[in-house]
Amino acid sequence: MKKLINDPLNVTDESIEGFTKAYAHIIKQVASRVVARKDAPIEGKVSIVVGGGSGHEPEMIGFVGVGMADASVYGEVFAAPPPPSILTATKAVDGGKGVLYIYGNYAGDNMNFDMGAEMAAEEGIKTETVRVWDDVASGSPENYKDRRGLIGDLFVVKVAGAKAETGAVLDEVKRVAEKARDNCRTFAVALSPGTIPATGEPTFTIGGNKMYFGVGAHGEKGVKKTELKTADEAVEIMLKAILEDLPFHKGDEVCIIINGYGSTTLMELSIVNRRTHELLEENGIKVYHTEMGNFLTTQEMAGCSITLMKLDDELKELYDAPAYSPTINKYPALLSKR
Amino acid sequence: MKKLINDPLNVTDESIEGFTKAYAHIIKQVASRVVARKDAPIEGKVSIVVGGGSGHEPEMIGFVGVGMADASVYGEVFAAPPPPSILTATKAVDGGKGVLYIYGNYAGDNMNFDMGAEMAAEEGIKTETVRVWDDVASGSPENYKDRRGLIGDLFVVKVAGAKAETGAVLDEVKRVAEKARDNCRTFAVALSPGTIPATGEPTFTIGGNKMYFGVGAHGEKGVKKTELKTADEAVEIMLKAILEDLPFHKGDEVCIIINGYGSTTLMELSIVNRRTHELLEENGIKVYHTEMGNFLTTQEMAGCSITLMKLDDELKELYDAPAYSPTINKYPALLSKR
Repeated sequence: MKKLINDPLNVTDESIEGFTKAYAHIIKQVASRVVARKDAPIEGKVSIVVGGGSGHEPEMIGFVGVGMADASVYGEVFAAPPPPSILTATKAVDGGKGVLYIYGNYAGDNMNFDMGAEMAAEEGIKTETVRVWDDVASGSPENYKDRRGLIGDLFVVKVAGAKAETGAVLDEVKRVAEKARDNCRTFAVALSPGTIPATGEPTFTIGGNKMYFGVGAHGEKGVKKTELKTADEAVEIMLKAILEDLPFHKGDEVCIIINGYGSTTLMELSIVNRRTHELLEENGIKVYHTEMGNFLTTQEMAGCSITLMKLDDELKELYDAPAYSPTINKYPALLSKR
Repeated sequence: MKKLINDPLNVTDESIEGFTKAYAHIIKQVASRVVARKDAPIEGKVSIVVGGGSGHEPEMIGFVGVGMADASVYGEVFAAPPPPSILTATKAVDGGKGVLYIYGNYAGDNMNFDMGAEMAAEEGIKTETVRVWDDVASGSPENYKDRRGLIGDLFVVKVAGAKAETGAVLDEVKRVAEKARDNCRTFAVALSPGTIPATGEPTFTIGGNKMYFGVGAHGEKGVKKTELKTADEAVEIMLKAILEDLPFHKGDEVCIIINGYGSTTLMELSIVNRRTHELLEENGIKVYHTEMGNFLTTQEMAGCSITLMKLDDELKELYDAPAYSPTINKYPALLSKR
């Protein structure tokens, strides 16, 4: 796959710089791989630091803003951010009330953020951690802590960011983040791979008329390879896995994310969303709100994921709270029209 | 290219339905191919109707909302909407103060919207038309009315929608729409084609290490085929064509659109945006705001376009006015932070 880039070894730095220029009214670059909200640090507010490998844009960098994350820290493409960068992000946004780390549950990220937390502690900054493990295809319900993080972190960051804006203490922000995380389930499919900029190599190979169910955000092979299915058939398989896992019940109210992985058109995502809403209605599950778009990409991988978050009154209020970030915007004055 | 769809002949209808379900807090479907803002018709406000072929999502359907378009009307993939659908959209949103049609300058759209306008006139509804022809690669400056419309309509609809919200009369809304249109210039490139859902055929063929400059939004062949260039080299060629055309001068202030055509990653768009900002600064042109993302797609075509709109005080005020739509949101209360 051809890419419109310069030196493949500079894609992370150049894209962070270019992304920040597009959203300079919301974010600022505070170090080579660290982007913070423009008005950080905010005294007396718990801060939220997110991060992970680059190459998934807009994922983590799109979450930085008002009512969302205070900073995002990057590694190379698909690689965890180094601990010193995590420390830099932590110090850049600490407002004296502690810092919550939210990131996907991958070995490299876990290790590096834990080291970053130790370094922060040495500097007198208290941190807590919420790892997101929403991918039901990557581990059994009993071993949920082995599961990978997918786009569920969008909901976790939205909820935690809203709580932090209320002036809540670190433990309270962590509590709602964990509640959002524990109420999220995601399932992903892929039709064709993305390619890694530095090598030009696809993340996996797959036959011309095949698709993968249960694929990971770095192109990790899925749990099942099948003939290409229709959108409606694929949604039925994906939703069944999600609904049985939490499990979701008749009468539940949910938020949805229909996430595209790169080259899947919004036309396709809309068709996926159509069947998702139909099936939820058939199951007696009420949809409160839907986020649809490319939030977590795997370069130009073709595929999508469906995420459900089960709501309660607290999560609903935090989900609707004001937010102003590249990826998610909530504006109560206009939202009241719904 | 594999697609996650059902019957290829139903993609337009199913995607409109699914898109509307995702944005049911903003839009409603009022006929099989017509989507209107949820609170339409609004008495005493000039209404704006946009439209074109489907397959470019989110393009026109994403423009429907508060401070934007009142309705969007669709044809099949890459085909103009039929006149009866245009009439349906017009009647659905007319608030007694007239309707402005805004759409890309293509023969089929021109003919069908003109017929729709005649049918509306027979029903006593006054209409005016603004055709968008921002693609500098598709005609000489003298024959600008032969030029194709690209994503410049995002700015034209934003400005016209804001003006309509003030209660302005039809001629005034048309005047600012034309001013925005006349101040916009776009140039597009493509690296690989999209495919048409109904046929599975690519919109063009191109060598493995080639790219097109000056490509159209339906995969119309570009004005120049070259070896694949770096992002920085491509931006230099694109911006030169744009800056010389209006022309833009030192001291001008502009808004930018960095548009992705489908499978070009946000990482690449960010790298394109980085060089765009650098070059504008070198030319003494000030950037007021940047919109970056997939706004007008050609299925999963790889490529992007750059649009500049030259601002004056009136355009700036209308650009910043409140908007609430799937694609563009402006919240003055939060924007004041910038």
